Amino acid sequence: MWAEDKASQALGMAVVAIGPGRATLRMTVRAEMCNGHHVCHGGMIFSLADSAFAFACNSHNKVTVAGNCAVTFIAPARAGDILTAEAVERHRGGRSGVCDVTVTDGHDTLIALFRGHSIQIQGELVPGLTEAASDPAPRG
Amino acid sequence: MWAEDKASQALGMAVVAIGPGRATLRMTVRAEMCNGHHVCHGGMIFSLADSAFAFACNSHNKVTVAGNCAVTFIAPARAGDILTAEAVERHRGGRSGVCDVTVTDGHDTLIALFRGHSIQIQGELVPGLTEAASDPAPRG
Amino acid sequence: MWAEDKASQALGMAVVAIGPGRATLRMTVRAEMCNGHHVCHGGMIFSLADSAFAFACNSHNKVTVAGNCAVTFIAPARAGDILTAEAVERHRGGRSGVCDVTVTDGHDTLIALFRGHSIQIQGELVPGLTEAASDPAPRG
Amino acid sequence: MWAEDKASQALGMAVVAIGPGRATLRMTVRAEMCNGHHVCHGGMIFSLADSAFAFACNSHNKVTVAGNCAVTFIAPARAGDILTAEAVERHRGGRSGVCDVTVTDGHDTLIALFRGHSIQIQGELVPGLTEAASDPAPRG
Repeated sequence: MWAEDKASQALGMAVVAIGPGRATLRMTVRAEMCNGHHVCHGGMIFSLADSAFAFACNSHNKVTVAGNCAVTFIAPARAGDILTAEAVERHRGGRSGVCDVTVTDGHDTLIALFRGHSIQIQGELVPGLTEAASDPAPRG
Repeated sequence: MWAEDKASQALGMAVVAIGPGRATLRMTVRAEMCNGHHVCHGGMIFSLADSAFAFACNSHNKVTVAGNCAVTFIAPARAGDILTAEAVERHRGGRSGVCDVTVTDGHDTLIALFRGHSIQIQGELVPGLTEAASDPAPRG
Repeated sequence: MWAEDKASQALGMAVVAIGPGRATLRMTVRAEMCNGHHVCHGGMIFSLADSAFAFACNSHNKVTVAGNCAVTFIAPARAGDILTAEAVERHRGGRSGVCDVTVTDGHDTLIALFRGHSIQIQGELVPGLTEAASDPAPRG
Repeated sequence: MWAEDKASQALGMAVVAIGPGRATLRMTVRAEMCNGHHVCHGGMIFSLADSAFAFACNSHNKVTVAGNCAVTFIAPARAGDILTAEAVERHRGGRSGVCDVTVTDGHDTLIALFRGHSIQIQGELVPGLTEAASDPAPRG
């Protein structure tokens, strides 16, 4: 699935680690990701967190999509900063799940807090393979 | 400020209308904005809504930044879809504000609902010019 | 269902109007609903909005529960204030829905904005009666 | 301040522990806190979490109020259940803060996740005493 996720690739994201209910992604802030204040656009930070969320909640081989997500911007990020998003599933039950993502920069400064709510829909990511823990995510 | 907002430009956003506490932006979904499910990455939809939010809450010539934002994804968008984000300030008082953004596609299908909370910081966008209604936003 | 909703009754809520995807509830702030700042506890304002949300999203005779909800507190309410919560469904599709609630006081001052996400579960409120628009809500 | 927080008292809340940026509160679900589904009204669970949030973010002797809060309901609580809300500040800087609250029942079942955003306003809880860690909260 990662091979087809052009959006995450276009932003230069890299998968650092994936496990059951967990995922860590990394992205370097580029000049063209910044806004008129010369800080990273909130949407780019959200995108990184959202991709980490998607990888974490799709690590169970069930097709899962985001329902609603909230993000709190704590500190600005700037061009050249290397951002790391760590996603951890807080709960999964029935067809829904909750995942917390923490975004930090290279100095361990807290950049943003993200909480995503997922909904499981019909289908498997890899047909016939259930609960495989290492399949990348179908959506961002 | 728009001239320097490289992030919104890189995503091909266009400002349709801006007024006091309001802003409408448009963006065409490109293939490289899509994820492994062949639908628009949630972060790209968030980015459009977030930029509309920034324009609306910075339409008063006070430097305003996003505190926290929530987005609900209603329907998927696909490559070629033209998305419109309409931002309307629901409240502004003291140093904080609340803004609702509705994202629709070219068929008026509801794609996403966004609610942003802004915080006003020191400074003016255009020094000496207060309450100018048409100054683009410092952040996305 | 209203007859059994002891929580909403204990807070003195009254149903003003209910229609398909809509509900209006009213509640008078009592001294024992206030906190150490002598303003209405946020939880009491949330409760009123949450009950209005429940009535609106259960107006279709499908058992619906709250998934997650967000509230923004705009202005304080005080003992004696009469609060009105107007809930309007923004979207309903598949098994999920989104509902916006506006809470105002007797002077039309905006007190709070609430957005609730609902999930439809198995069962009908009134067995055999589908899409009845005036059945009160099973939960708050 | 706790002595004057009638709302938290009326709901039977008890303070279990308070420290810098932390607070733990407890509440037993009563029959009159339940709704038509015979489960605890979401507003009562929110109230407990909101009070824990208020105690945690007011543990620094600065008057702090809630800006906006989000709650995710995970599992139902019933009459007789003893709920515990643990609040931990995730960030505090400038005049704003973020606090996460986890609500569990007596069997350590996760009942709800809450995230609150606070805003610091003028004034001290105890005049002249700054950074006292054990002063209860002005609001809920």
